[in-house]
Amino acid sequence: MEIGCLRQVGADDSAILDKIVDSLTSLATPTNKEKELSVKFGKINECVMEAQDGSKARPSVLILGAGRVCRPAAEFLASIGNASSAFLKNSPGINIGEVKEFQVIVASLYLKDAEEVIDGISNTTAIELDVKDYGSLSKYISQVEVVLSLLPPSFHAVVANSCIEHKKHLVTASYVDDSVAGLDEKAKGAGVTILSEMGLDPGIDHMMAMKMINQAHARKGKIRAFSSFCGGLPSPAAANNPLAYKFSWNPAGAIRAGRNPATYKSFGEIIHVNVLAGNELYDSATVFNIADLPAFALEYLPNRNSLVYGDLYGISKEASTIFRATLRYQGFSQIMSCLAKIGFFETQVHPLLKQGQRPTFKVFLSDLLKSKFSNLVNVEDMEGIIGNEKEMIALLTTLGLCKETAALKTIKTIKFLGLHENVEIPATCSSAFDVACLRMEQKLSYSANEQDMVLLHHEVEVEFPDGRPSENHRATLLEFGRTENGKTTTAMALTVGIPAAIGALLLLQNKVQTRGVIRPLNPEVYIPALDILEASGIKLPEKVEIL
Amino acid sequence: MEIGCLRQVGADDSAILDKIVDSLTSLATPTNKEKELSVKFGKINECVMEAQDGSKARPSVLILGAGRVCRPAAEFLASIGNASSAFLKNSPGINIGEVKEFQVIVASLYLKDAEEVIDGISNTTAIELDVKDYGSLSKYISQVEVVLSLLPPSFHAVVANSCIEHKKHLVTASYVDDSVAGLDEKAKGAGVTILSEMGLDPGIDHMMAMKMINQAHARKGKIRAFSSFCGGLPSPAAANNPLAYKFSWNPAGAIRAGRNPATYKSFGEIIHVNVLAGNELYDSATVFNIADLPAFALEYLPNRNSLVYGDLYGISKEASTIFRATLRYQGFSQIMSCLAKIGFFETQVHPLLKQGQRPTFKVFLSDLLKSKFSNLVNVEDMEGIIGNEKEMIALLTTLGLCKETAALKTIKTIKFLGLHENVEIPATCSSAFDVACLRMEQKLSYSANEQDMVLLHHEVEVEFPDGRPSENHRATLLEFGRTENGKTTTAMALTVGIPAAIGALLLLQNKVQTRGVIRPLNPEVYIPALDILEASGIKLPEKVEIL
Repeated sequence: MEIGCLRQVGADDSAILDKIVDSLTSLATPTNKEKELSVKFGKINECVMEAQDGSKARPSVLILGAGRVCRPAAEFLASIGNASSAFLKNSPGINIGEVKEFQVIVASLYLKDAEEVIDGISNTTAIELDVKDYGSLSKYISQVEVVLSLLPPSFHAVVANSCIEHKKHLVTASYVDDSVAGLDEKAKGAGVTILSEMGLDPGIDHMMAMKMINQAHARKGKIRAFSSFCGGLPSPAAANNPLAYKFSWNPAGAIRAGRNPATYKSFGEIIHVNVLAGNELYDSATVFNIADLPAFALEYLPNRNSLVYGDLYGISKEASTIFRATLRYQGFSQIMSCLAKIGFFETQVHPLLKQGQRPTFKVFLSDLLKSKFSNLVNVEDMEGIIGNEKEMIALLTTLGLCKETAALKTIKTIKFLGLHENVEIPATCSSAFDVACLRMEQKLSYSANEQDMVLLHHEVEVEFPDGRPSENHRATLLEFGRTENGKTTTAMALTVGIPAAIGALLLLQNKVQTRGVIRPLNPEVYIPALDILEASGIKLPEKVEIL
Repeated sequence: MEIGCLRQVGADDSAILDKIVDSLTSLATPTNKEKELSVKFGKINECVMEAQDGSKARPSVLILGAGRVCRPAAEFLASIGNASSAFLKNSPGINIGEVKEFQVIVASLYLKDAEEVIDGISNTTAIELDVKDYGSLSKYISQVEVVLSLLPPSFHAVVANSCIEHKKHLVTASYVDDSVAGLDEKAKGAGVTILSEMGLDPGIDHMMAMKMINQAHARKGKIRAFSSFCGGLPSPAAANNPLAYKFSWNPAGAIRAGRNPATYKSFGEIIHVNVLAGNELYDSATVFNIADLPAFALEYLPNRNSLVYGDLYGISKEASTIFRATLRYQGFSQIMSCLAKIGFFETQVHPLLKQGQRPTFKVFLSDLLKSKFSNLVNVEDMEGIIGNEKEMIALLTTLGLCKETAALKTIKTIKFLGLHENVEIPATCSSAFDVACLRMEQKLSYSANEQDMVLLHHEVEVEFPDGRPSENHRATLLEFGRTENGKTTTAMALTVGIPAAIGALLLLQNKVQTRGVIRPLNPEVYIPALDILEASGIKLPEKVEIL
C-alpha cells in the first residue's frame, strides 16, 4: 500500500471520502445537528484491497508511542465508521451506519504497553518497535498511509525522515523545532505533509486563534488585542491541596517551566519578564476571572515568547496587545515563588545530600533556611521555628520572602508536602530540587476517580477602521477527564489525542493539500478540524460583545 | 402489618437487623473497607409474611411526594438488600448477597408523577394519593412501617397526626416548625418517633456538627468557634453566567432568602444583620476560600439566626463564635445587591405593569432607574444610557449603588438576563420582582448534562483547658449531580434524599429508640447515619490541624 493509493482512487471514492469529512463537519453546524450521518465507505476498502492484491490491508495509521495520549487518538481513528464511536456519540443524531473502519497500528518500545493501550479497541493492532532501530521503523512506516508520532519531540526528526523516504504523511502534537523545521523543503519535494503542533497547546489554540482572526479580517476588522490563556489543571474538586495543583507526570518539567523567561506586548509596549533571580515569572502572576466562568479562582503567568505568535498569526503589526499565558489556580504562583526563594528549586548538589548523608526533611528545610538567611536573622532554634506556624510566618515575612497570606499558604504547602517531617530523605535526592520534586510527585498525584481539567480561553478585541463599534470575541474550551468502564481518559490526553488523530484523518482523506512542515494555521486544516472536534464533543463556544 | 411487628420479631431477627446496620456502618471504617457485606435477611421477611397471614406484604416505607428528592430516597430504600445497589456500590467489596428487599410505596397527587419517579426501580409501587384526603392518607399509612414525607413543610403536621394515630414512625427533611414541635408529647405517648431535619441543611449539617462537637467534648476540649458553610450551587463548569448561579426551581424563594435578617456571634460579640433597607445581607457577603479547596471562588452570607444552633448543639456558653452561612460564588451578592437597589426585587404592583400595559424590558428598566433617581441625575435619555456599557457604569456608580467592578458585573448580568431588551414583558408580570424572577427562571436554568453541586463545610476550633494546643477541625462534603443512563440526579436531591432514606432505614430497623419529635443530634442517629452515608458514597472527609 502506497501513500499514492489515496490519490489513485477513482472519482467515486474521493467523493465518498469527501462525504465523510463533510458529514463530520456538518455535524457541527447547528442546522444539520439532527441530520443522520450515514455515508458508505465500502469502495475505499475495495480500492485498497485491489492495490494490495490479495492482502487484507486497509487505509491505516501507525501511531508511535503508547503513552496516555495514545488511547483517545487510537480510539478515535479506529472508531471512524463505527456506529458506536465513543467520540462522535456526543453529537445527536449520528449514525455512521455502514462506513468501514480504518486499521490502526500502535507501536511501543514494549509490546505490553501497546497492548494495554489498545485493550478493547477494535481495528487496532499492537506492535513492539524501537524507533532507534531505523530498519524496523522504516518497515512499519512503509506499510501504512499516515504516521502519528506521539513520541518525545527528540524522536520526530528521525521519524520524519523515514516518512519522507516512504512518501507518508506525518502528524505530531509537538512544537516545530529546528530539526523538524529543517525538513520542510525535503518534505515538499517528496509531496509529504508534516503536520506539527496538532495537539491542544500547541494545536487547538492555533486553530481557534486563526479562526477568530481570519473571521475578523474577513469582516474588515483589525485585531487590536489577542490574548490566550491555557492550563492543564486538576478539576476544582481535585484541587484539594494548598497549591491547588496536581502532577500527572514528573513535576520537574512543570517546575522548570515556571522559571522560563517571558516576553509579550501589552498596549503597544514590549514587556520582558526576566528570570535572573529566578522568580520574576511567579511574581508576575495576576489574579484572573473568566467573565463567563466566574466560579474558578484563577491566575495567569506569561507563557514564553508571545511575540512569535503575533508573527505566526500575522497580527504583529495591527495588534498592540499579544499575550499568551498559563493558567493556574489562585495562590499557586505565590507559593511557588516562596518555595523558590527558600531554595527548594536549586538544582546543584546540596552539601547535606552528598553520599552517605541522609538528613530528615525537617533538618534539610532548617538548613535551607539557615544557610540562606543566617546573616539576616538569629535562628538558633530553626527546627523549633519550623514546628510553629506563627513563628514560621514571622520568619518568612521578616526575611522578605513573601507577604503574610502567601507565607501562610506556603507553610500549609510545606506541611502538606511533608517537607517539615522527621523522615529521612531518600538516597535518590541530591539537590533541593530533587527533594521538592520527590515530595510533589508523592503528595500531588491524582487519586482514582479524581478528574483533571483543561481550560483554554482566547480573547480577541476587534476594531473596525470604518467606525463600527469594537467587539470583544471570546472562545473557551473547558474539558474534564472522563471515566468510562473504570478507565479514565484525562482531559489533557483527550484534547491532545483527538486533534492529533483528526490531523491523521484529514491526511488520510487527502483533505490537506499543503506539503512540507505545517501547523494547523490554514483554513484547510482548522476548519474541518474544529468542526470534527465539536462533533467529537470538544467544544469551544464563542461569545461576542459589542464594546 | 403493625409498627409493632418489628418489636415483636424474635431475637434472631433483631440480630439480623442489627447485623445489617452494623455491616453498613463497618463499611465506613477503614479497617473493614475490604470486608464483604453478606448478611442474610430471610427471617424478617418470613416474620412479616406470618404477621400478615397470607399477604405478600414486607417491611415497607411510604414516601409522600414524588419530587426530585424522591427518586434517590426510593432507590436507596428499594435497593437495600440488592447486590447492585447503586448507592452502596461506591464502597469496595460490598456484596449484599441474599438480603431480601424492602417494599417502597411512592405516593403523589398524580399517579403519573409517582410512576415516572419509580421507573426502573424494583420493589417499588406508585400510588395516587391526595394527602388532603385524610381517609386515604390514613389507609396507606396504616399499611406500612415507616412514613417518609418529602411534601412541603405545611403538610407535615397532618401526616404526623395520622402517623401517631397508627403508631408509625415519620421522617422528614424539613425544619421542625411549631405545628410539628407541638406534637412531641403526643408522639411520645404513642411510642412514635418523628425524625425531622433529616436532609442536608438541615440534616447532614447537624450530624457532622454533633459528631465533631461530641468528639471534642469526649477529649475534654471546649468548642471555641463553630462555623458552618453550606451552598447548593452550579458546578464551576455550569456556573457559566455573570451571576455564577442557577436555579433548579422557581427563583422567588432563593431571592427572598437573600433578604432575610441574620444573627450570629463572632469573637463574643452578637452581630445582627438588619434588613430594613433590604440589602444589608447581600452587602455583608465576604470573599471566602476553603483552605483545602482553593480552586473555588466563593463568598458567604450569614444564614438566619445562628444562635439557635448554639443552643441545639449545646455550645452556646463555651463558643465565642457561632456562625452559619450560605455559600455563593464570588460576585453574586454584589450583583444581587445592585439589582435590589435598582428596584428589581420590589414586590408591589408596578404602575407600568398594570393591566393593559406591556412595556418592553428596556422601557421598564429605564423607568426603574428614572423613577428612583431622577432627583439625583439628569437622565433624559435613559434608554440611550442603558444601551451603553460605559455610561451605565457611570450612572450606577454616580448613584452610589455600587463600585465600578460591581457595576460592570451587574450590567453584564442585566444583559445576560435580557433585562435591557426591546422585548415586551409578558402579562404574567405585575411587579419588578416578577420581571426579575421570570428572566432568572428563563436564563439561569440548568441545561441537559450540566451538574449542580453541594458544598457543606464545617470548621470547629477546639481549645483544651489543660493546656494542650488548640486544634482546628474541618469537615467538607462536596457532591456533584450524577448522570446515569441519561437520568440526572442532582447533588441536592442526593444529599437530601439519601439521609432522609437512611432515617427511614434506621427506624425500620428500630435503631432509633428516642420517641417524640427529634432531630439527628443524638449519636444513636448520627453515628449510623454518617457511616451509611459514607458507604453510599457521600463522604465528609475530616482534617485536623494543630494551631
